[in-house]
Amino acid sequence: MTFKVTILGSGSAKPSLTKHHSAQVVNLYEQHYLVDCGEGTQNRLLRVGVSPMKINAVFISHLHGDHVFGLFPLISSMGLMGRKVPLHVFAPRPFDEIMEHHFRYFDTELPFEVVWHEVHTTAHELLYENNVMEVWSLPLRHRVPTAGFLFREKTPGLNVRKEKIAELGLGVAQITAAKRGEDVTLADGRVVPNGELTYVPYPPRSYAYLSDTNYSGKAVSLVKGVDLLYHEATYADNMRKEAKQRGHATTLQAVKAARESGAQRLVIGHFSSRYKDDSVLLDECRAEFAETYLAEEGKTFEIVPQKKN
Amino acid sequence: MTFKVTILGSGSAKPSLTKHHSAQVVNLYEQHYLVDCGEGTQNRLLRVGVSPMKINAVFISHLHGDHVFGLFPLISSMGLMGRKVPLHVFAPRPFDEIMEHHFRYFDTELPFEVVWHEVHTTAHELLYENNVMEVWSLPLRHRVPTAGFLFREKTPGLNVRKEKIAELGLGVAQITAAKRGEDVTLADGRVVPNGELTYVPYPPRSYAYLSDTNYSGKAVSLVKGVDLLYHEATYADNMRKEAKQRGHATTLQAVKAARESGAQRLVIGHFSSRYKDDSVLLDECRAEFAETYLAEEGKTFEIVPQKKN
Repeated sequence: MTFKVTILGSGSAKPSLTKHHSAQVVNLYEQHYLVDCGEGTQNRLLRVGVSPMKINAVFISHLHGDHVFGLFPLISSMGLMGRKVPLHVFAPRPFDEIMEHHFRYFDTELPFEVVWHEVHTTAHELLYENNVMEVWSLPLRHRVPTAGFLFREKTPGLNVRKEKIAELGLGVAQITAAKRGEDVTLADGRVVPNGELTYVPYPPRSYAYLSDTNYSGKAVSLVKGVDLLYHEATYADNMRKEAKQRGHATTLQAVKAARESGAQRLVIGHFSSRYKDDSVLLDECRAEFAETYLAEEGKTFEIVPQKKN
Repeated sequence: MTFKVTILGSGSAKPSLTKHHSAQVVNLYEQHYLVDCGEGTQNRLLRVGVSPMKINAVFISHLHGDHVFGLFPLISSMGLMGRKVPLHVFAPRPFDEIMEHHFRYFDTELPFEVVWHEVHTTAHELLYENNVMEVWSLPLRHRVPTAGFLFREKTPGLNVRKEKIAELGLGVAQITAAKRGEDVTLADGRVVPNGELTYVPYPPRSYAYLSDTNYSGKAVSLVKGVDLLYHEATYADNMRKEAKQRGHATTLQAVKAARESGAQRLVIGHFSSRYKDDSVLLDECRAEFAETYLAEEGKTFEIVPQKKN
């Protein structure tokens, strides 16, 4: 039931001695998903102990170099490491053309397939799904077509109330049926509705990645109740004008998104290289929203199940 | 009169936790030249204290990703940093096509020009020249068209022998003329040949970069008398067969190149990720050629003038 997000890079485009370009790895039930892939991501993955071979799928928010330049080097290395399973890449157009050109000149004999899936940056669509989670696109407001991503756990499997097992003398077959969501028939013919026997052990968890973007009410409305919200905060709040012009957000705009979405925790990142000490940005946020954290490189944010019983 | 080479990356293609892909920066009279540009080079430059803005020209040996994937991210950053002066890139075809595709999708409004110069990988040609140095191509033997590079200082300006100034009572104009290489006419009409008055203060220095390559007698013959020789040694000498097949060299093949060229010092690099401790490779070389050094990342090799007088 692992659900955690590890920050690989938290800098904005202008190079910095201390920060790398945007990239994160989401671990959901020990399946690994890469979100954005700035230069050097493969090295950052190794440093946090995640083999590039473990990456199932990659989600690229937009086609600015600082969010994508690490992807082809990563793909090359996966080839050298002998990957055989397809890699699914979710990215807006014209990623297809960029990929086609890459493979014309590099990795011409890659031992695995790279499967591109188009992300429509104006839509809220289901992009990816397995038996425990879904990934949805979130329309964002940047200088080029950009999407955020919502990682949403499916409703966890039902637990059966222990007191009911004892009270009704349920057997293995009845318990199994209850876990499947079925009503249970007792020996005396009485039918017990499933709702009386079971409960959802914890509410499904979610993580939203909103970068790069101006504050977007629409995106916020799509991530209501999110447990962990990553929102870019390229600038301190005294730079709202520059943020607006450049398709970015300030600290307090990230806080606004966290508050309005009802997020439990806010992680800010994509810091402008002008800030030598990001605690300036953190302090601005914490004054308004205590549960704010810096996207420090190498740091992992775990989303722990909030048990009801 | 600075002449030094700083190693930015020394690993081969397969990713490693401890090494980056090939890149070096040559500082010749405080002008900076990049040799190969693997992923992450811009970050490595910052770490060794060389601003990306200081790079005059880039020399790319061949179009394998581990030698070139860092170049477009570097170019993007130079644009963000406000570079105005052209960047000269020397690389084999089809770098021109790769560059054209890049600029179709990224950095579409770059504030400076990137000027591509073709490197003919079968020729020994003068690629670049200024008043103190020249860069020459060196044909290499790899799986794809590949060139090495020879950085050669021009003959340093003449010094005038102090004892001759005193003996002949030379004035400023006569000394200046002698420094220009002219014969000098004395007050009594006697003409003193320049050769009697002047000397070259030290032999011109040179640095050769040979990577990626099998041992090449031809390349070695073109770098005779080189002060510092970088030769790849991807493998220990017990892997000659694999080295040959893959267009690489072993430790003792690098030593052979150093001996036959008469190099003063040998730097080995492009280490296979199979070696957890590169001292294995160093020891093999030093047993045969004491002046061997590992291309450790961040390390600078200075070529000091060897004064004659």
